[in-house]
Amino acid sequence: MTDNRPTLAVVGATGAVGTVMRDILSTRQNVWGEIRLIASARSAGRRLSVRGEEVEVLELTADVFDGVDVAMFDVPDEVSAEWAPVAAERGVVVVDNSGAFRMDPDVPLVVPEVNARMTRQRPKGIIANPNCTTLSMIVVLGALHAELGLTALHASSYQAASGAGQAGIDTLHDQLNKVAGNRELGTHPGDVRRVIGSDLGPFPAPLALNVVPWAGSLKNDGWSSEELKIRNESRKILDLPDLKVSATCVRVPVVTTHSVTMHATFENEVTTERAWEILRDAPGVVLYDDPARGEFPTPADVVGTDPTWVGRIRRSLDDPHSLELFVCGDNLRKGAALNTAQIAELLAAELTPA
Amino acid sequence: MTDNRPTLAVVGATGAVGTVMRDILSTRQNVWGEIRLIASARSAGRRLSVRGEEVEVLELTADVFDGVDVAMFDVPDEVSAEWAPVAAERGVVVVDNSGAFRMDPDVPLVVPEVNARMTRQRPKGIIANPNCTTLSMIVVLGALHAELGLTALHASSYQAASGAGQAGIDTLHDQLNKVAGNRELGTHPGDVRRVIGSDLGPFPAPLALNVVPWAGSLKNDGWSSEELKIRNESRKILDLPDLKVSATCVRVPVVTTHSVTMHATFENEVTTERAWEILRDAPGVVLYDDPARGEFPTPADVVGTDPTWVGRIRRSLDDPHSLELFVCGDNLRKGAALNTAQIAELLAAELTPA
Repeated sequence: MTDNRPTLAVVGATGAVGTVMRDILSTRQNVWGEIRLIASARSAGRRLSVRGEEVEVLELTADVFDGVDVAMFDVPDEVSAEWAPVAAERGVVVVDNSGAFRMDPDVPLVVPEVNARMTRQRPKGIIANPNCTTLSMIVVLGALHAELGLTALHASSYQAASGAGQAGIDTLHDQLNKVAGNRELGTHPGDVRRVIGSDLGPFPAPLALNVVPWAGSLKNDGWSSEELKIRNESRKILDLPDLKVSATCVRVPVVTTHSVTMHATFENEVTTERAWEILRDAPGVVLYDDPARGEFPTPADVVGTDPTWVGRIRRSLDDPHSLELFVCGDNLRKGAALNTAQIAELLAAELTPA
Repeated sequence: MTDNRPTLAVVGATGAVGTVMRDILSTRQNVWGEIRLIASARSAGRRLSVRGEEVEVLELTADVFDGVDVAMFDVPDEVSAEWAPVAAERGVVVVDNSGAFRMDPDVPLVVPEVNARMTRQRPKGIIANPNCTTLSMIVVLGALHAELGLTALHASSYQAASGAGQAGIDTLHDQLNKVAGNRELGTHPGDVRRVIGSDLGPFPAPLALNVVPWAGSLKNDGWSSEELKIRNESRKILDLPDLKVSATCVRVPVVTTHSVTMHATFENEVTTERAWEILRDAPGVVLYDDPARGEFPTPADVVGTDPTWVGRIRRSLDDPHSLELFVCGDNLRKGAALNTAQIAELLAAELTPA
């Protein structure tokens, strides 16, 4: 009997997101026929587990896409920019998690809970997956927008080390080892820097016992690339090209799961109760909001789970059109691998004969 | 020769703030005659160093204030509520760092760089010191308001463990010891909770490898006391009773120094350059804002210093009246002991014969 199910390629199978992706593919509904694991020449030949089977990692070449229906890319921007079109030219639908195509008007930027219909409009054969920080909040924001009409957003992020990949995770653990046990640390200027030394990994300052108001690269007028991504991607996903957005991105010493505080303003007046009502039933959202019982999301509880968690919802005291919220989302799952897998599953349903 | 300088009492000399206070009194200009260290009966009799001398800690009683000119209180709200009036009745001017009197209309709430003149209007003989989170940002905000006219503020905090006192510091160090060296931690739901165990100290959730969107006690409509303090105290200090303020307070695994992201809106149009110009010369402020050179404040660099540091200044992309900023201030120094000492020094100047 032939396997009618589509063939999937996972490009970048060995990184921090690739590892979570293999875990997700092993636990979600098995919609794929063959799964090919693809990485750079350096990792080719390794055997990695997916769906309980050992699979040999193949080198990224044009021919490796022969017979592939859908490819999920999690590689640096420049690798996606080069190879996603190569795969698309061979008839593969590419779901790309890099920043290379997100703002391309011919590439839809998709969050299945918010704009699943956009997956069908893909003239280049490429669909983009949003940045992890945008994804940490957009499912909650999309649900509220659908009912209340979003007009403005001010966001501040509390971003995890793994947003900077495996090197970010390793750096944070290395630094924690260095600072732990020294009870004098964190009280004199520069003492944390002295103990941690000059190896800051992918971060511009020590991350252990610190917060760092920087993520990404420097763009015009002092904005970081990460802050502009939140603005541009939220506008595109919500189809609100004039949405007012300002964001400040800050890295915190958390391994995985981004948190975001949001001040969101709507066309309609809002109440906390109405927000609860909307979010209680929203797909992909867990409402966890009872401070009297100590219930609000934190990264330590949210990490490893699929939904976006939301709590600390309050109507702004000076504006009946605005809400304050605190959201947490696993930046490697919903923030990357899970959303990519969800988009790919929409394609699998489209490509699988009824 | 008689010492004409006024006598100072430090009430709460043994806590986290009291320790920093003794350090500050030992390094700033020596405007005080006698300095009495006062604490609860439990700590009375201990000998502590101030201005290079060992001083015996006295028990808090009414008589201990005899001959005192100025008393600085850093004790729990209920202790201040009881004892500050006792001292004031004996002619002592009290500078109180608790929340007991901050919103009392007959008690001025003072930040010397912003509203020093208010120290003279003290019908109860009590002057209040603002909350540490308000103090982490108000010097920067006050300087901008004086030139541009503040109309609204949205703030998100990144608050240090020592905001919860010595117990907060100890808890964070204990938790760091438990999580350090375990490179699997922070990737599965609840794994940090399991390793840390049930001893969360003064925090409602684990703080190591986590952020906790809660500080203070629960007030109406889901607001925390800390969030309302930022709103009420900013309004009072800036003398803007209708200022629009919304804040979300989040605890982060930093020992000392609070950080705050601010979206501030002004009557006048603003530019980043104008904000730099104002803040470069503002007393008590360090402008540290050149991301191209990796220059932005972080707690690890700011801790142990006196000023409020500000960086990441950007004019909002969708509103020429708004700025985004990131500020850091040592919550035990400017956020508590230093501001109290500065107020007390204004009183010393007033009380010292010319």
